[in-house]
Amino acid sequence: MERVDKREYGMIRPVKITRNYIKYPEGSVLIEMGETKVICNASVEDRVPPFKKGTGEGWVTAEYSMLPRATETRNQRDINKLRMNNRSVEIQRLIGRALRSVVDFKALGERTITLDCDVIQADGGTRTASITGSFVALADACYHLLQKEMIKEMPIKNFVSAISVGVVEGTPLLDLCYEEDSRAEVDMNIVMTDKGEYIEVQGTGEKYPFSYEMLNNLLELGNKGTRELIEKQKEALGEIANIIGGSNE
Amino acid sequence: MERVDKREYGMIRPVKITRNYIKYPEGSVLIEMGETKVICNASVEDRVPPFKKGTGEGWVTAEYSMLPRATETRNQRDINKLRMNNRSVEIQRLIGRALRSVVDFKALGERTITLDCDVIQADGGTRTASITGSFVALADACYHLLQKEMIKEMPIKNFVSAISVGVVEGTPLLDLCYEEDSRAEVDMNIVMTDKGEYIEVQGTGEKYPFSYEMLNNLLELGNKGTRELIEKQKEALGEIANIIGGSNE
Amino acid sequence: MERVDKREYGMIRPVKITRNYIKYPEGSVLIEMGETKVICNASVEDRVPPFKKGTGEGWVTAEYSMLPRATETRNQRDINKLRMNNRSVEIQRLIGRALRSVVDFKALGERTITLDCDVIQADGGTRTASITGSFVALADACYHLLQKEMIKEMPIKNFVSAISVGVVEGTPLLDLCYEEDSRAEVDMNIVMTDKGEYIEVQGTGEKYPFSYEMLNNLLELGNKGTRELIEKQKEALGEIANIIGGSNE
Amino acid sequence: MERVDKREYGMIRPVKITRNYIKYPEGSVLIEMGETKVICNASVEDRVPPFKKGTGEGWVTAEYSMLPRATETRNQRDINKLRMNNRSVEIQRLIGRALRSVVDFKALGERTITLDCDVIQADGGTRTASITGSFVALADACYHLLQKEMIKEMPIKNFVSAISVGVVEGTPLLDLCYEEDSRAEVDMNIVMTDKGEYIEVQGTGEKYPFSYEMLNNLLELGNKGTRELIEKQKEALGEIANIIGGSNE
Amino acid sequence: MERVDKREYGMIRPVKITRNYIKYPEGSVLIEMGETKVICNASVEDRVPPFKKGTGEGWVTAEYSMLPRATETRNQRDINKLRMNNRSVEIQRLIGRALRSVVDFKALGERTITLDCDVIQADGGTRTASITGSFVALADACYHLLQKEMIKEMPIKNFVSAISVGVVEGTPLLDLCYEEDSRAEVDMNIVMTDKGEYIEVQGTGEKYPFSYEMLNNLLELGNKGTRELIEKQKEALGEIANIIGGSNE
Amino acid sequence: MERVDKREYGMIRPVKITRNYIKYPEGSVLIEMGETKVICNASVEDRVPPFKKGTGEGWVTAEYSMLPRATETRNQRDINKLRMNNRSVEIQRLIGRALRSVVDFKALGERTITLDCDVIQADGGTRTASITGSFVALADACYHLLQKEMIKEMPIKNFVSAISVGVVEGTPLLDLCYEEDSRAEVDMNIVMTDKGEYIEVQGTGEKYPFSYEMLNNLLELGNKGTRELIEKQKEALGEIANIIGGSNE
Repeated sequence: MERVDKREYGMIRPVKITRNYIKYPEGSVLIEMGETKVICNASVEDRVPPFKKGTGEGWVTAEYSMLPRATETRNQRDINKLRMNNRSVEIQRLIGRALRSVVDFKALGERTITLDCDVIQADGGTRTASITGSFVALADACYHLLQKEMIKEMPIKNFVSAISVGVVEGTPLLDLCYEEDSRAEVDMNIVMTDKGEYIEVQGTGEKYPFSYEMLNNLLELGNKGTRELIEKQKEALGEIANIIGGSNE
Repeated sequence: MERVDKREYGMIRPVKITRNYIKYPEGSVLIEMGETKVICNASVEDRVPPFKKGTGEGWVTAEYSMLPRATETRNQRDINKLRMNNRSVEIQRLIGRALRSVVDFKALGERTITLDCDVIQADGGTRTASITGSFVALADACYHLLQKEMIKEMPIKNFVSAISVGVVEGTPLLDLCYEEDSRAEVDMNIVMTDKGEYIEVQGTGEKYPFSYEMLNNLLELGNKGTRELIEKQKEALGEIANIIGGSNE
Repeated sequence: MERVDKREYGMIRPVKITRNYIKYPEGSVLIEMGETKVICNASVEDRVPPFKKGTGEGWVTAEYSMLPRATETRNQRDINKLRMNNRSVEIQRLIGRALRSVVDFKALGERTITLDCDVIQADGGTRTASITGSFVALADACYHLLQKEMIKEMPIKNFVSAISVGVVEGTPLLDLCYEEDSRAEVDMNIVMTDKGEYIEVQGTGEKYPFSYEMLNNLLELGNKGTRELIEKQKEALGEIANIIGGSNE
Repeated sequence: MERVDKREYGMIRPVKITRNYIKYPEGSVLIEMGETKVICNASVEDRVPPFKKGTGEGWVTAEYSMLPRATETRNQRDINKLRMNNRSVEIQRLIGRALRSVVDFKALGERTITLDCDVIQADGGTRTASITGSFVALADACYHLLQKEMIKEMPIKNFVSAISVGVVEGTPLLDLCYEEDSRAEVDMNIVMTDKGEYIEVQGTGEKYPFSYEMLNNLLELGNKGTRELIEKQKEALGEIANIIGGSNE
Repeated sequence: MERVDKREYGMIRPVKITRNYIKYPEGSVLIEMGETKVICNASVEDRVPPFKKGTGEGWVTAEYSMLPRATETRNQRDINKLRMNNRSVEIQRLIGRALRSVVDFKALGERTITLDCDVIQADGGTRTASITGSFVALADACYHLLQKEMIKEMPIKNFVSAISVGVVEGTPLLDLCYEEDSRAEVDMNIVMTDKGEYIEVQGTGEKYPFSYEMLNNLLELGNKGTRELIEKQKEALGEIANIIGGSNE
Repeated sequence: MERVDKREYGMIRPVKITRNYIKYPEGSVLIEMGETKVICNASVEDRVPPFKKGTGEGWVTAEYSMLPRATETRNQRDINKLRMNNRSVEIQRLIGRALRSVVDFKALGERTITLDCDVIQADGGTRTASITGSFVALADACYHLLQKEMIKEMPIKNFVSAISVGVVEGTPLLDLCYEEDSRAEVDMNIVMTDKGEYIEVQGTGEKYPFSYEMLNNLLELGNKGTRELIEKQKEALGEIANIIGGSNE
């Protein structure tokens, strides 16, 4: 089997992370993974959800949406159906959990950082690209607070990136594009830290159940992919990369 | 560490599956796992979603909801907030995927089976209990079609059950009750077939990332739990159990 | 004319009232009237609607809903239509009015008791069963407050129960099941106290107008039915029954 | 006790029925009962709800709303709360039932008449004024169909009018204004035909339960009130009044 | 070309302004322009939107709606579509802007005046009639505050009225009725003060672009129309007219 | 007065039009006017609104939205308020009208082109940039149809562009940025064709009424601005520009 873009099975697509993409947010990233393009904006607000009020702790949350024509055929906007797309609900819950797991809420203080992930062009892997890109936007937003002396230490404990893996025609593949994803028999999203530990593992047998062996093959690919993406994040962040996780040691 | 109900770490809670619980649905099950109680009703309807029209294939979908006072404190009904609970959206998508993966849509014919999972009392593991109970309701609904000679063979290819596993105070536990779940560091839901294969694996590091070793410990527990639940499903279904999956051989 | 279940014209269906049905609510009742089954949960909350704030008085309100497959054919959930079912709106207003009329809001203090009536199986008379069952749940919730010494006296002044009556093929019937109800020419719901007085009388000529004589026949049947139901409530409540209304003498 | 407008206990307020109030509807009435003013528009449309399709029968339905400032203080519009007012839902169901009970759907043919009742000024009794006024608009709309030879006979079998009665300070009163209604201990709406029969009786003990004797006092007052209103309807309709109910003889 | 009602090209339709139309609002006007009839109610409330809190300044806002049968064919109510009509949104923003431009918010003090414009019969020009009528209702509401000594001076700086102009078959017309409006090639709404200055100019080439010369022709007609309408407003307001704008001199 | 970016009063900001910005739509443009950036995607669909069915004519419509952080402070998404932003409603109606006025619906055939205008960064003039950019996307979409031989001639009759003008501190300015717009006393949006004719003129006296002289000054500036923008559109479209409007000669 040849991949649609001739890539090797265990290769990720070309990644480009553009910081300061939009001028207003405290952190703003355009992440491109192959033809998938997501704007990840991090907004800092001086409010926390009710269950955090008075705790001295902050919160991180995410919202995910696609432009109507980010895909081959046009999708109606959520507001015109008066109902949020179920897939988007599931995805934004995943993004929020992934990022929260590496944030020290005490160090962040009573404020909320919202990651808005708006997919402007979709070609598979939008949820994992959103996590990988949002991490960089989150780092920028935290650094902004640090520089303004609103917080005392970087509240990010680990790097985190995410990648999709899957099985197509029995073959485990890394970083599926849309065409591959739509034919995948097994579909898995893996979120990992720079310590090589798991934050989220979500695997689904789309066409048939999968074995423990296949699960292990996919985990290994995911391991490789997230490690490479964390390198890209470090490159993009430059100096700022050095102070992430430092406060834990 | 002692478990809240003195169970051993690798033990599931007492399970009770009551078939024909409500008189109208084609399949109706009350599943009780410890104090968690879910009504799973399977409704057969002669319509399919647009993307299945004219294909000769059927569809299986799920809806999940909790009564306002299924929990310690009362929750507002979705309709009063004009917005479906995000957690419910995520859960019902999981239930639907899990059941669809073992159904032969050709054998089902152009009809939809909807699994309504209504939690009347929640004490942890409502999503996995919903899958385990819905499978039995789905089997009953399919058997109903078979007996009425509306279909020619049982369209269910495998048994499927689900269980939650997690890590509390560093210890991997099987089938967490709510009190344990709320303190869990890692939380995982595992959906497996009677062939010992995976349909869905969803693990989340709620408090911190988890290692490959811990992932393996949890998968093993999940393996044990789903196997035991499939035995309970077989007991509950009696004769009907024998014709499930038979059409594949 | 023979009734569908061979009952005599003036007989109610078998009634079963199960207290403490769900473990979390302050009052929880499963009421079964023939094949009609309703879960009535009473939740106490420390808030009152705006118009009661600062008055020292409490409030009682009700919500009514049916599981999608409580009926012969599956109904869509309200949230999927983004609109509460009009019939449910009418019914929950009736339940709320009926229960409020026997509560001493001063004695209850500034708190709200919400009665959630969720029909799990419907076979006619769900609104009247909801009132009859909710009364018992309400009594349990009030007794819970009394025992916790949060209130000083039982705030319930009277027993209240409700029954449907109607005219089928010209014959007045007590406690109609669904099949009878759908053919009824006149349909009436009667809510009465243990003093034999009316709290609500709602009669509708569904097929044609009805005479004063027929109205009187129906009121008499309703009188008999509500009296019998109050006996069932007293049996179910045991000791607690004795302190209801006592504070008024 | 003196009534707020010095009326005798058993007297209705001045009634004024203006036909052809708005120029577009097939029937359009402004009904004024004292200070209560309701526009009742009857619209004929060539469609029926799904359950009437292909039956050769028509349908009658009603919608009820109040202008934001029809009352002492301004109410938010339903659309700004994205939720129909519960009271309005209850009322429009009552209006629809009341009018349907006197219409011969076969004679109407497969079309729908919608009665839009928009309260421009509210001073008690808006739901009963809506029924009384809508009846005249309905008659006009049917007469319009008759004249256009779209139907062969008048599909209205009986006159129908409605009035509120209630108990204030222990005294039964006819046609309560808002000030009386807000103090009423018992509140009842009565819908009757020109044959002196009941279409709907809805009585509520707002402050305390009421006795059989009181119920009878109120029914008698209602009888008087609806009879007088039917006279007003006949006056307003002139010639058209003569052909109503004629098809039954 | 002859106009549908034989009017000259530059003539407005007969105007009738009825003050104190509804009894509860602080200002209430029925404005009739030909067959177009709009109820304009001004409600004073002791609250301001968030951005005005603590500024000592007030606010003026408008809501616009049509009765379902204000038009030739019946329109569904907004609440039944769970969505405000887009045209109504545009119109009520225009009405609000037009009135706000002549109000001294300091002189009004921290309170909000809401103009509810409910069209009971529509025959073209409902938005401009709403502005012209609302101005009178607003003046009455302000005068009410002045008389109650809640404000010290009339907060209205100028008269404001509005008129539609348009081009039909190449001919510029003043105050188009619905039949003309629906055929218009160019459609313009003009809002002006008694000083002959513009508050809002909204012109649209509905069928083709229009020239600067045509724009000037239309502005001139609008000038004439608004001037005549301000005369009508002055007549209707009598004495009150004299104190409008006085505080500016 | 010096402009915030030192521009001369009658100068537009630097304009950049990037075609084929997103890969899926039939026409896709990123327009940048100074710091304002809008993605304009044109989607062709084989359906028309009900009032166009069977006419052989097509339709053009627009939707407008801003990313939550396109502005200085984060805005909630429409779907989270279950209500479309009123300003967006007004704007998308304007965009739709502007583009429809230059399209020959017969030549387009029974299909709909939807212009999705998503503002990713807002700095004033987003509605006019949306029109100017959408025109180019629309031209590309039409050219796509022409090349695929789905239509026989270019259905665009004229070029159309739009610009904002306004008065700040008494001075008429062309193409206001956000800072200027928020201080403007008069605000006007002008939509013109390459023939120098008007498609839409919308002027509002935000702080006080404006004179006929000022209106003329603003129209003149708008004339200059739209002419310059049409040059930019022609440059961007290259060859395609030559066949626009050709079918009219």
